[in-house]
Amino acid sequence: MTIQPIKWKKNRLFLLDQTRLPERERYIECRTYLDAARAIKKMVVRGAPAIGITAALGIVLGVEAIPQQNRRRFLTRFEKICQTFAATRPTAVNLFWAIKRMKKLVAHDPFPPLKELKALMKKEALKILEEDVKSNKRIGAFGSQLLKNDDTILTHCNAGALATGGYGTALGVIRAGKSQGKRLHVVADETRPFLQGSRLTSWELKKDGIPVTVITDNMAAFMMQQKRIDAIIVGADRIAANGDVANKIGTYSLAIVAREHKIPFYVAAPLSTIDFSIKTGREIPIEERNSEEVSHISGKRVVPKGIPVWNPAFDVTPNRFISAIITDQGITEKPYGKNLKKLISL
Amino acid sequence: MTIQPIKWKKNRLFLLDQTRLPERERYIECRTYLDAARAIKKMVVRGAPAIGITAALGIVLGVEAIPQQNRRRFLTRFEKICQTFAATRPTAVNLFWAIKRMKKLVAHDPFPPLKELKALMKKEALKILEEDVKSNKRIGAFGSQLLKNDDTILTHCNAGALATGGYGTALGVIRAGKSQGKRLHVVADETRPFLQGSRLTSWELKKDGIPVTVITDNMAAFMMQQKRIDAIIVGADRIAANGDVANKIGTYSLAIVAREHKIPFYVAAPLSTIDFSIKTGREIPIEERNSEEVSHISGKRVVPKGIPVWNPAFDVTPNRFISAIITDQGITEKPYGKNLKKLISL
Repeated sequence: MTIQPIKWKKNRLFLLDQTRLPERERYIECRTYLDAARAIKKMVVRGAPAIGITAALGIVLGVEAIPQQNRRRFLTRFEKICQTFAATRPTAVNLFWAIKRMKKLVAHDPFPPLKELKALMKKEALKILEEDVKSNKRIGAFGSQLLKNDDTILTHCNAGALATGGYGTALGVIRAGKSQGKRLHVVADETRPFLQGSRLTSWELKKDGIPVTVITDNMAAFMMQQKRIDAIIVGADRIAANGDVANKIGTYSLAIVAREHKIPFYVAAPLSTIDFSIKTGREIPIEERNSEEVSHISGKRVVPKGIPVWNPAFDVTPNRFISAIITDQGITEKPYGKNLKKLISL
Repeated sequence: MTIQPIKWKKNRLFLLDQTRLPERERYIECRTYLDAARAIKKMVVRGAPAIGITAALGIVLGVEAIPQQNRRRFLTRFEKICQTFAATRPTAVNLFWAIKRMKKLVAHDPFPPLKELKALMKKEALKILEEDVKSNKRIGAFGSQLLKNDDTILTHCNAGALATGGYGTALGVIRAGKSQGKRLHVVADETRPFLQGSRLTSWELKKDGIPVTVITDNMAAFMMQQKRIDAIIVGADRIAANGDVANKIGTYSLAIVAREHKIPFYVAAPLSTIDFSIKTGREIPIEERNSEEVSHISGKRVVPKGIPVWNPAFDVTPNRFISAIITDQGITEKPYGKNLKKLISL
């Protein structure tokens, strides 16, 4: 079964509601660009590549609804739509990358007729979706070389089909390994507070018949100490030019613990996740989300009233902890500053 | 307000139900020793010292109900009661230590009349409770010397009043620091799966007016990276003769990450937590608890059906990661093998 978190059907955008999985498998229809922006903010759809794709298709919904035939007015509305998406979530760079790709079309000279432009935009957004799945399959083909038969792989959060157009980055590597006939076992951190690991990663691996065991985040070190983990593969929300990686909160902790146990720590991401405009991870903005994600679980308050809660959604793992970055253009190692640049010139 | 997790009133045992905090503050009455054993198993009462105290008082409930006046029959029943408590939870050594103390009374020569023996047992169990609070205050007096004004201290799980007879071990150190006029801030890991940090530590520190911020377990490394943590203090469930420390799952991870950031990592525990009968932490049995603690939160399933879950309740932190062990007989440092022995000869 192919898992499709984002569907475009008859000019409408449908998103698999990831806030309700695994309890309910339900698609939400986005009728307006604001629906799509809200879905990103509320994490109905999440994962860096999936956010980028949703923004691109959301922009299509937005421009389709612009009545003005006047070019300047159209551009003002278009700009506002792009700004709305840019303001949804600050960390995943794929969002800004996708918006930029859509913006390139209006920079086209000569400026196309609006009807034609709208058609071009739809084509471009659907291309971003298609390309992402292909790109994940390339990541999988490259990354699966790093896995041996009978390996147990720890992953954090969900860098799977649900976080992308389909197939996944970190989980794409595992899918590719499986399709080559390797027996692989996955250990999924539950990934508090949103529980992407227990709710989403386990759900999608089960659908594909890949064995998975769920643990709480704080059990990972004990599993590594017991030599029950052969490799760690995670996704990324933004990679700086020097190879520092922003990813779901908790990734940094895993990376430190992995090094202590001499377990390889891999990051799997498409080139669109690399932000060459920033030198190091220190420049990556880290989103802080609503404290209720921590203080309440399943709608029930677990932290007493009046107690402050901190809820950063991501952290930055310095490049020195990363054994390799698996991209759609190949696997790269240290020094990342030099080697990541090489990839884009391929 | 003094927090008392364990109360003995009119020959009855009352336990503050820690499975319901912070939502409800309710004492459960234990009428029989089986009630007390069940309360330990279900974690109505938890924390190594508190488990030991509860077992001692539970044994009193048990022996009080023995009708036999025949010495041999009494001893058979007594042995069965002790075995029931010994089978509740395997990791915390204070449980076995408390049972041993109670057993010493029946080894008394000449064997006292049963009525007298029962009275001696009650006295001994209440002494264990009283001594524990005093011991925590000594731990606090020693440990607070390690804290500076304005320090932010990270703690894991709950090693507070709720985990002991009162006052706490790790939180006792913080309470002592506060009573000396130091401004201290606590960061509490929520501590999945049982949420001792978000539910219990925050609750009891709030009662004492000590500022506390709750984070998920996987956020601790990011806070350390940002230099927002000055020291880490945790409790212990069992300390091997070489200073290896079994404590709540996730402790080991914190210790590795603390060392990476050059943050002192302290363990606070009474001497009764040290198990000189075992050389290293490898010999400490690690309890695995019901998978539903991980797969269900607030009664709601978060892990899809059929997905296996691993739920070890503790891990072992090797001695090399521990900056100091704060005991009721003083602070000790490496080499622990030698220095812990010195403490008992004091």
